[in-house]
Amino acid sequence: MIIDDPEVKAEVERVFATYEAALVGNDVATLERLFHDDSRTIRYGAAENLYGMEAIRAFRRARPAQGLARDLARTVITTFGRDHAVAMTLFRREAAPGRIGRQSQTWVRFPDGWKVVAAHVSVIDGDEEGGGA
Amino acid sequence: MIIDDPEVKAEVERVFATYEAALVGNDVATLERLFHDDSRTIRYGAAENLYGMEAIRAFRRARPAQGLARDLARTVITTFGRDHAVAMTLFRREAAPGRIGRQSQTWVRFPDGWKVVAAHVSVIDGDEEGGGA
Repeated sequence: MIIDDPEVKAEVERVFATYEAALVGNDVATLERLFHDDSRTIRYGAAENLYGMEAIRAFRRARPAQGLARDLARTVITTFGRDHAVAMTLFRREAAPGRIGRQSQTWVRFPDGWKVVAAHVSVIDGDEEGGGA
Repeated sequence: MIIDDPEVKAEVERVFATYEAALVGNDVATLERLFHDDSRTIRYGAAENLYGMEAIRAFRRARPAQGLARDLARTVITTFGRDHAVAMTLFRREAAPGRIGRQSQTWVRFPDGWKVVAAHVSVIDGDEEGGGA
């Protein structure tokens, strides 16, 4: 199993960038397309635990479209073989000084493209090293 | 790619249970053995952002050994092909009523066994649905 094959990594970097643009722009259709449409897909959000694509979709569609802009930091994408990857990143929002967000995603390649099969977002006090309560 | 092949799933369930026992028992050697020993392994903890196995090791070895007992809830392990899996679980600690923990792990099979390549732990206010601030 090759870790970080350059071609695979470039693919995941592209789809990660597409996801990030959709998130900040509240492009819900793209966000939904990039998650695996399955009852086993799970997303732990900043304040909610979403089990299954139905719950994830309902949450996205009800989400306010304001205040989504953010800056990423220390983004690391690592690929395992040709069809599996993890994407880890920190993020900050201007409205939340002194707080640091963490987003982790597991991506799998399906016949119709790369999809997130599991995601976890959390926000803690602190800086890039953490250090919150 | 077969999702949730029973044989693969049973393997990951076993290694997940081994990890959980090591965590609650503060068996640091086992915890370290079950993480991929690599600079690209990342663990976002309850209050810290650990990039690379060196940082993860240093954190574990300095961690207090008390108050680690916890109850898991809504644990879902999903396998993708023979060598990749995600393990998602909620947890509660007696000392933290009204709070719910979330732990996500991405597991990859290496020649020397299954290892966590990425992990994320966070604790929020709320119950199994979330609902925190």
